[in-house]
Amino acid sequence: MEVAHSLLVSHDKIEIMMASNSPCAACKFLRRKCNQDCIFAPYFPPEEPHKFANVHKIFGASNVSKILNEVLPHQREDAVNSLAYEAEARIKDPVYGCVGAISVLQRQLIRLQKELDATNADLIRFSTNQGSSFFNYPSNWNNDS
Amino acid sequence: MEVAHSLLVSHDKIEIMMASNSPCAACKFLRRKCNQDCIFAPYFPPEEPHKFANVHKIFGASNVSKILNEVLPHQREDAVNSLAYEAEARIKDPVYGCVGAISVLQRQLIRLQKELDATNADLIRFSTNQGSSFFNYPSNWNNDS
Repeated sequence: MEVAHSLLVSHDKIEIMMASNSPCAACKFLRRKCNQDCIFAPYFPPEEPHKFANVHKIFGASNVSKILNEVLPHQREDAVNSLAYEAEARIKDPVYGCVGAISVLQRQLIRLQKELDATNADLIRFSTNQGSSFFNYPSNWNNDS
Repeated sequence: MEVAHSLLVSHDKIEIMMASNSPCAACKFLRRKCNQDCIFAPYFPPEEPHKFANVHKIFGASNVSKILNEVLPHQREDAVNSLAYEAEARIKDPVYGCVGAISVLQRQLIRLQKELDATNADLIRFSTNQGSSFFNYPSNWNNDS
């Protein structure tokens, strides 16, 4: 999951698309004329038809348009990319969508925190015992008796 | 974020709702008759009107209905609850929605993994040096020279 990468704002790409005459992926999908003030055009390039198809399937064009109008212009590319990420996750996993990824990450965090706590406990025990007979019991055994 | 808790299936609640005569939150919101075979009724109780209002605002009733029909009956409560979680996150943060939570969790994981690596390195260094002069340098200093 490379969220940070997928949310990168590419202003060059936006400028190229605005100058292009071909309709954006959204207008192509919706079979409508793509005007200069099209809210979708900067974020749904014609060469990425799946990006719009996915958000359309999960959120609907009208809801995406409403969300875009709710946020500031400089936030719109991030908003579109996070919607596209959510839509793709929901298409891959219709039951949990990207909430499944949140659950996985939460479990990984809990596991890692436990491992860190055990390692810190080892370190304290080792420093207290000056290393003597330290490796006679498992590293995750927290009973000092 | 207690995802696991919010996804808990409450069969008792479903049965109570099915027996009740009041329309479900979805049908009330959409001002339509709530039939016995209403796809929303088991998952949108009348006493939680915001749950449906949120998923309706973000996904639309038709898309939620399509997703519910795509998954198996025993998966529907989890699907609805994950959609409700996503919708609430998007209403709170229209730019990143729950993808923002994924980014935060990913950053926490990276930080925790670094901390664990540093602690493990400390432990190895301590065992190698038999504890002598170990605490003369910071615990996260990985240069052994």
